[in-house]
Amino acid sequence: MKAGPIELGEGKSSAPKAGVNRGMGILDFILRILAFIGTLASAISMATTNETLPFFTQFIRFRAEYNDLPTFTFFVVANGVVSAYLLFSLPFSIFNIVRSKAQNIRVLLIILDAAMLGLLTAGASAAAAIVYLAHRGNARTNWFAICQQYNSFCERISGSLIGSFIGVVVLILLILLSAVALSRHK
Amino acid sequence: MKAGPIELGEGKSSAPKAGVNRGMGILDFILRILAFIGTLASAISMATTNETLPFFTQFIRFRAEYNDLPTFTFFVVANGVVSAYLLFSLPFSIFNIVRSKAQNIRVLLIILDAAMLGLLTAGASAAAAIVYLAHRGNARTNWFAICQQYNSFCERISGSLIGSFIGVVVLILLILLSAVALSRHK
Repeated sequence: MKAGPIELGEGKSSAPKAGVNRGMGILDFILRILAFIGTLASAISMATTNETLPFFTQFIRFRAEYNDLPTFTFFVVANGVVSAYLLFSLPFSIFNIVRSKAQNIRVLLIILDAAMLGLLTAGASAAAAIVYLAHRGNARTNWFAICQQYNSFCERISGSLIGSFIGVVVLILLILLSAVALSRHK
Repeated sequence: MKAGPIELGEGKSSAPKAGVNRGMGILDFILRILAFIGTLASAISMATTNETLPFFTQFIRFRAEYNDLPTFTFFVVANGVVSAYLLFSLPFSIFNIVRSKAQNIRVLLIILDAAMLGLLTAGASAAAAIVYLAHRGNARTNWFAICQQYNSFCERISGSLIGSFIGVVVLILLILLSAVALSRHK
């Protein structure tokens, strides 16, 4: 054994080591389901958000929808893509539990996880920047805080960020788990 | 050898394999320097951006600075943190070239790379969302395109995104490299 396990003790014999590997595989599976639920909930709750104000002028009907802002459309697409990826990665995660020696699949998963982490973080933080603007506005650029009018719209879009950021944290944990699992396999 | 190398041929003997590992270590080192330059250039070019328009009213002096928008401040901080991390990771990268058996450092780097990827992507895409808004505005929310007035300011902030996104791509490549290197070590 050239490099020892960096955590969880020094399992010299084969049986406890396989048990730890299996435990890490199951944790990987659970985390993927958690991130899948988070990103799917984010995508759905953002995509179904709209609010029509109870007054209108002859020029404008005051109605806010998520696709009024291109950033929110990107947010929905990013969350949709990542949740689809997480769903399709579940069989590979199960395969890793059953055959814990399969290195190549783990390397593939770690690379795709990193790419999905990039996509999801991009969507979530771009949407967060716009939500912040909607809440606070910006005096220097004369961008007004639209949340003063669209209360429930703003609550929904703020809430839908939560699942997405849970997904980001879980994806970082998944990369961590895979890296540890890769280094343990000799 | 339980799992073969997933690329770069099937080096069965020890000498060519060590050579490939060394090559991957050097590539890792070069990519880190590239990402360091990109993120540092982004941070500096964003932080030094300001424009004062040649006219003013009694109420407002028309001056745009990066810290008028909190998102750009976050962008500068994120790029600064990531470039500092990349600088400090260079010695570990050299250590990996010299002693290519060191697994634990590689696992540590892969985890920190993933975290920094998250931070950098968050900063870059939040800034990109605001830059898009500055260029195009949004009719539904009455957010005006400030780039119609602040031309050179907008060019600078748009340009400073480039280095940051180069950093994002390079960090994904670094995670890929580390994962492949981890799976090759037996």
